[in-house]
Amino acid sequence: MSEKYMKVQRIEHGTVIDHILPGMAFDVLRVLGISNDRSMSILINSQSKKGGKKDILKIEDVELSDNEASRLALVSPHATVNIIVDGHVVKKFNAEAPALVRGVLSCSNPNCISNQNEPIQSEFKLSPDEGHRYVCTYCERDIVDLVTRIRS
Amino acid sequence: MSEKYMKVQRIEHGTVIDHILPGMAFDVLRVLGISNDRSMSILINSQSKKGGKKDILKIEDVELSDNEASRLALVSPHATVNIIVDGHVVKKFNAEAPALVRGVLSCSNPNCISNQNEPIQSEFKLSPDEGHRYVCTYCERDIVDLVTRIRS
Repeated sequence: MSEKYMKVQRIEHGTVIDHILPGMAFDVLRVLGISNDRSMSILINSQSKKGGKKDILKIEDVELSDNEASRLALVSPHATVNIIVDGHVVKKFNAEAPALVRGVLSCSNPNCISNQNEPIQSEFKLSPDEGHRYVCTYCERDIVDLVTRIRS
Repeated sequence: MSEKYMKVQRIEHGTVIDHILPGMAFDVLRVLGISNDRSMSILINSQSKKGGKKDILKIEDVELSDNEASRLALVSPHATVNIIVDGHVVKKFNAEAPALVRGVLSCSNPNCISNQNEPIQSEFKLSPDEGHRYVCTYCERDIVDLVTRIRS
């Protein structure tokens, strides 16, 4: 029997991030700066009860802040964040893509003023007309692949 | 209750790699060339029954070959490989560090003849005198960090 090989202990303290877009868990870890010295469980392309696939992250002894949840939302909008203390969910919220993002993303346009060592922060607005798309306030360039534009 | 968030289904077909050195599961995935389009579960720094920490990988619909197990052993010697078919372990073996490695590693010495575009394969021997250490047959340089020397 294979069951014993994946017995996953209940998390007593930490964060469970559910409904991550399938295959995006590694990128979520990267943008959150969570490295392999943490205890964690990662499910990739897990079968969702609602049909389709999703990723799940269970990170021990980390309580995701609102700011970190915003970064998460850039990579995987609508992921669900559960903060666990003493084995109970004490806080649950959806990671919502922020309307305005300052300083987190870098513009893909090398000529953009935000890339010229000027004393300004990068700034992007969530586009109202389409899905998950951000537009640079300065040069109006769209960011297509958000994952690659998140500053480390 | 948090239990429901990490309910891990039994694996029906695939490979379970147990006793991976703690924190090495991502490197194992890399050297095996397994990407995030697979269904898998990854436990990082999981509590081992024998004490200490370990990583565990459960990869669905992949049956690790002996050759792949050798690559795995370079990164995480003594990991346990379980091949699962129809929910049962049909094969179980330890990934043993091979005595001789041809073509898989690249020498860290830029002047080594194996790095000069000559028609020879790189070749390393497991050192008998110390732990998990490989020595280049051509220039006798030790490979200290095997993970970074594995060719993609």
